[in-house]
Amino acid sequence: MSKITEDILLIDGLEYCNWNRELFENAHQAGLTAIHATLVYWENTEESFEKINYWHHLFKKHHDIIAHAKTTEDILHAKKNNKVAIIFGFQNSAPIANDIFLVEKFFLEGLRFMQLTYNNQTPLGGGCFEPKDSGVSRFGCAVIEEMNRLGMIIDLSHAGKKTCLDTIEISEKPVAISHANPSFFHKSIRNIDNDILKKLASKDGFIGLSLYPYHLKDHGKCEPEDFCEMIKKLINIIGEDNIGIGSDLCLNWPDDIVMWMRNGKWTKKIDYGESKDKNPKWPELPSWFKQPSDLKNLFYILQKNSISEKTIYKILGHNWLKFMKLHF
Amino acid sequence: MSKITEDILLIDGLEYCNWNRELFENAHQAGLTAIHATLVYWENTEESFEKINYWHHLFKKHHDIIAHAKTTEDILHAKKNNKVAIIFGFQNSAPIANDIFLVEKFFLEGLRFMQLTYNNQTPLGGGCFEPKDSGVSRFGCAVIEEMNRLGMIIDLSHAGKKTCLDTIEISEKPVAISHANPSFFHKSIRNIDNDILKKLASKDGFIGLSLYPYHLKDHGKCEPEDFCEMIKKLINIIGEDNIGIGSDLCLNWPDDIVMWMRNGKWTKKIDYGESKDKNPKWPELPSWFKQPSDLKNLFYILQKNSISEKTIYKILGHNWLKFMKLHF
Repeated sequence: MSKITEDILLIDGLEYCNWNRELFENAHQAGLTAIHATLVYWENTEESFEKINYWHHLFKKHHDIIAHAKTTEDILHAKKNNKVAIIFGFQNSAPIANDIFLVEKFFLEGLRFMQLTYNNQTPLGGGCFEPKDSGVSRFGCAVIEEMNRLGMIIDLSHAGKKTCLDTIEISEKPVAISHANPSFFHKSIRNIDNDILKKLASKDGFIGLSLYPYHLKDHGKCEPEDFCEMIKKLINIIGEDNIGIGSDLCLNWPDDIVMWMRNGKWTKKIDYGESKDKNPKWPELPSWFKQPSDLKNLFYILQKNSISEKTIYKILGHNWLKFMKLHF
Repeated sequence: MSKITEDILLIDGLEYCNWNRELFENAHQAGLTAIHATLVYWENTEESFEKINYWHHLFKKHHDIIAHAKTTEDILHAKKNNKVAIIFGFQNSAPIANDIFLVEKFFLEGLRFMQLTYNNQTPLGGGCFEPKDSGVSRFGCAVIEEMNRLGMIIDLSHAGKKTCLDTIEISEKPVAISHANPSFFHKSIRNIDNDILKKLASKDGFIGLSLYPYHLKDHGKCEPEDFCEMIKKLINIIGEDNIGIGSDLCLNWPDDIVMWMRNGKWTKKIDYGESKDKNPKWPELPSWFKQPSDLKNLFYILQKNSISEKTIYKILGHNWLKFMKLHF
């Protein structure tokens, strides 16, 4: 078994953490190249700009180990300087409300990923929890065109099925599902059916595989071997070039945040999502993926499970970088 | 032919004017009881609160002839004091974004009508110009319940067909289409098919008949007789108790506002709506309905066209008041 070499890229295609020195150091010490960090879910325009301001404070405070990346060159530059590159993303389109001009305003601030929807319907399209998915709306088409023009990655995580299929069809640039797993691995509202995976890959689209318990077999109580088997099966379906990791690590948040993610401000009742638990709390993470640094350990897990080194390098980072290069 | 008596109510169920002294006086001199005034279309939360502030300035400046009505008692009180009652409405749900708590905040400021959508999809439902109407979304259901609870009228003007049918079904209180005509009178995206009209009336819902040229036969070049024939036909279908006027008068605005209404901030291209005219301007109003005071003249027009006085009183105002009483 060989060791990890210098030229490995370790890119996590989605994390939502309440970042502090300890977490940044954890990622830094493991040699993470880049993390796509979620800034907001339900926040409005002003709150989202404020969140960007907050990140500038983080960049200043932890400038020795992290750096803001607006381009793929920035990512490689950060690696060269031994820093973890942070890429901004929104897990919803709430920040742009109904204003096409806000897409560019956020792009200029560094936004490089945006989901069209987060569980619920937006002015752009349907969410995965809606009983009926509209598909991409008139405004949705306009925003897709604008994101293509600017070089902002369209993220279909949390979108409805028809919205996924429409977007893959409409978008002139390949689109991503930054954090989800195939439905064949674990059937859940958030995971992705084979027909979408195939259509996605046929247009060079990307999937970042998730380590979030609700997206994993047996709600995260599965073994690393199960995860590796899923990857092998997925490679058989869509090849090995459009797959990466989007761990969906949510760390250092109080349990209240689970409620915020599910309910935002859209209901006065309580929505429990797919959970049966009426005391919403963070689900227990798989023992083998609990922190940013565990992305590095995936190297050994994948290797142990007979996935070739070339393929591992692709899945852990090179694929993501190549995909990002198509956009920024 | 008899004259108009003191107890007539003249209620216009929708106007969108750039109000000034002259327009208020025009309404006042004709004895208008109340006008549901549109405040915003595409404006966000903050801009919508600012519009309410602006109206308080108008109420102060023209306190001798207009008054803000938050209840039906306020409307009758204004009439007693020889003032025109103004009722606030939003022609979109953009001001509440994805925040259920904003419904009550706007209600407390006097908002009594809100459309779920304006042409385009919103987080609540589908617009009439969308190629695919989602129907009412999860957030839409929550907002309908909240509007019912507070006593804010759900306005389905500019909504998609499925969203109309869903809302009529879901809402515990009767809903309104404040400004539109039956499709049988003039086929257009904004007008209403018979199946919706019947379902609406079966649940005591309301339609305000429009005088906006694009909703009228021959784009407004029709005669008052045509309008009266339409009313008679409509009464045969849904009875005479759920019908009023929602003139959709748009006065004292520059032509640019036509573009604003159609395009808001949602597209960088130009959407021409149903118009073939590539130089968007306000359409020519019918000669017999050009100003707020023409609501009074409708009395004589309807009378001349053999509509009974009792029915005219209902259509020109009593029906609206009775419907509003179910809510506020």
